[in-house]
Amino acid sequence: MHAALDAGLICHLGLLVDGSPRVVPTGYGRSDDTLYVHGSTGARSLREAAEGVEVCVTVTHLDGIVYARSLFHHSVNFRSAMIHGRARNVVDDDEKLRALRVITEQLAPGSWDHARQPNKRELAATAVLAVDLAEAAVKVRSGGPSDDTEDVEAGKAWAGVLPLRMHWGAPESAPDLPAGFEVPRHVGERQYRP
Amino acid sequence: MHAALDAGLICHLGLLVDGSPRVVPTGYGRSDDTLYVHGSTGARSLREAAEGVEVCVTVTHLDGIVYARSLFHHSVNFRSAMIHGRARNVVDDDEKLRALRVITEQLAPGSWDHARQPNKRELAATAVLAVDLAEAAVKVRSGGPSDDTEDVEAGKAWAGVLPLRMHWGAPESAPDLPAGFEVPRHVGERQYRP
Repeated sequence: MHAALDAGLICHLGLLVDGSPRVVPTGYGRSDDTLYVHGSTGARSLREAAEGVEVCVTVTHLDGIVYARSLFHHSVNFRSAMIHGRARNVVDDDEKLRALRVITEQLAPGSWDHARQPNKRELAATAVLAVDLAEAAVKVRSGGPSDDTEDVEAGKAWAGVLPLRMHWGAPESAPDLPAGFEVPRHVGERQYRP
Repeated sequence: MHAALDAGLICHLGLLVDGSPRVVPTGYGRSDDTLYVHGSTGARSLREAAEGVEVCVTVTHLDGIVYARSLFHHSVNFRSAMIHGRARNVVDDDEKLRALRVITEQLAPGSWDHARQPNKRELAATAVLAVDLAEAAVKVRSGGPSDDTEDVEAGKAWAGVLPLRMHWGAPESAPDLPAGFEVPRHVGERQYRP
């Protein structure tokens, strides 16, 4: 479960808003057995969630498409972690800073020691939720298709896996950087963690 | 909104199960203004949803990480479509076949005309939900960081975008294919739609 969480970039946060389910993509990070979810997107959703309501946080990696001889056995290779729990609104500044650090390490490793730290005002404007990792379900599918014997024997259709790969493109420096400002190693040499 | 939906591979389906929010990754497809969601994963969730309950379906593309001079302005470039509506359980066989066709075209274009079609038993074992696309929210962030003027002038930290790219790896043929079975063009020449 930690592996599936640690390899991701964003999560999908599910919660109720005015009684209706809502699924919001947002940043997250893990510290031991606590999942922290960031409030940069879906701020209203996060305020609603802050009252100790139930949330579901799902992190999914799509690893490939599984082509089978039958449409019925078509599938995907994936890894997902689904966390259930009651959201706790992080109000303590020290914990909030620690939480933002792990969220930053997840999305932009190395940035915490490179960029300007949050000031009081920015910290106050940022919502962070904590969810205990006690209740989690991990699902993994890997490998080739599971076709019916008669379809394998018929030998009429191709079967196999088309892997989905991700990688980082070349860094695009902001045009208003000082002349000659080099791309730092934590960006330029970042590796995609599969 | 259609563009954000049509470019995706999987969605995150949010719904209530026993009163608790659940977020399940699964396949989907679009036909005009109807979104079809597949029951290959989260079968129990889908049965629960079949009773006309409210669902939220979110499709998210992560396009890159936005590095700013301040941690506060770190962000991600993304496109997301969030659909709200009441799920309708697709029970008519003809509509279910049409729905499975668009779901297949989304995940494995070309497979519908290549692989064996679903038989009666397989059709009965597959759950498909329909959601009207009337209520949708689209969010897009693109471009470089939005830093505070003082941070830009300080010129201390790098800023820019690290693009996230996806592509298909080499097809991995199943070992039990007849000798010399070639990878069909709909797999071997598949292009990643950004």
